[in-house]
Amino acid sequence: MTGIQDYYPEHFAHCYGCGRLNEHGHRIKTFWEGDETVTRFLPKEYHTALPGFVYGGLLASLIDCHGTGSASLALAREQGIDLNGFNAPRCVTASLKVDYKKPTPIGSVLEIRGIIRELKGRKVITEARLLADGVVTVTGEIIAIQVGDDFGKS
Amino acid sequence: MTGIQDYYPEHFAHCYGCGRLNEHGHRIKTFWEGDETVTRFLPKEYHTALPGFVYGGLLASLIDCHGTGSASLALAREQGIDLNGFNAPRCVTASLKVDYKKPTPIGSVLEIRGIIRELKGRKVITEARLLADGVVTVTGEIIAIQVGDDFGKS
Repeated sequence: MTGIQDYYPEHFAHCYGCGRLNEHGHRIKTFWEGDETVTRFLPKEYHTALPGFVYGGLLASLIDCHGTGSASLALAREQGIDLNGFNAPRCVTASLKVDYKKPTPIGSVLEIRGIIRELKGRKVITEARLLADGVVTVTGEIIAIQVGDDFGKS
Repeated sequence: MTGIQDYYPEHFAHCYGCGRLNEHGHRIKTFWEGDETVTRFLPKEYHTALPGFVYGGLLASLIDCHGTGSASLALAREQGIDLNGFNAPRCVTASLKVDYKKPTPIGSVLEIRGIIRELKGRKVITEARLLADGVVTVTGEIIAIQVGDDFGKS
């Protein structure tokens, strides 16, 4: 499985949530399925809130990185970038909103699906929903901003 | 250092973010300092976004658990509960909003400070700010709801 994160420049590939070079992290991968972006993740048994349910902070983290990944996918498509090597646009999160609709059961692969709501210049708004066993348990909105290759290097 | 989390009933003490019984988790502790609630946390070196900066998902997680902890503290004070044993009110997050104002440098203890904006019945709204080296880098708002002892047991 290849995700947009496989195309991030090395400097941007250390994120705990989605960096392919962070051996301690979640290493999520985000890709297109038709017009929606998708990320799948299996929480560890210790990622609990209450016993039997997934920790809300992890769910927020997944939605956050899904949002920057979705924004990168959308920008690459908008800008006609042929992804190869490490040439993906890279974004950071400006704002994250998460609504917990019901407890998320632990034990199965979670699916986060995104719809690009707005793309204007360097700004991308993604609407996300997180499903456990096919049921939406969490929704979110991520505002991501494209940054230059030198971001965070100064 | 004692936090409200030390007074959670056992069933609620397994949260990856703040459960004293989750040996894999962050085990944050939230307490009063005057009229503000405070949590302090030192990220691991691998909790990075870009090299040198803290992963936004972790920051969202800290604000989330700080919010439920703050809500519990506020409810205990409102309800005149003398905290001892495991009698703290326990809350879950209904909604989380996080704004990333600037990159958060990694390497020092982060401080999350909360102000209780509203307490109405079982609902508590906390406004939070996260500081690194005394500078606010992230702000947030958490809507938490008090739940009964049997929450998540069915």
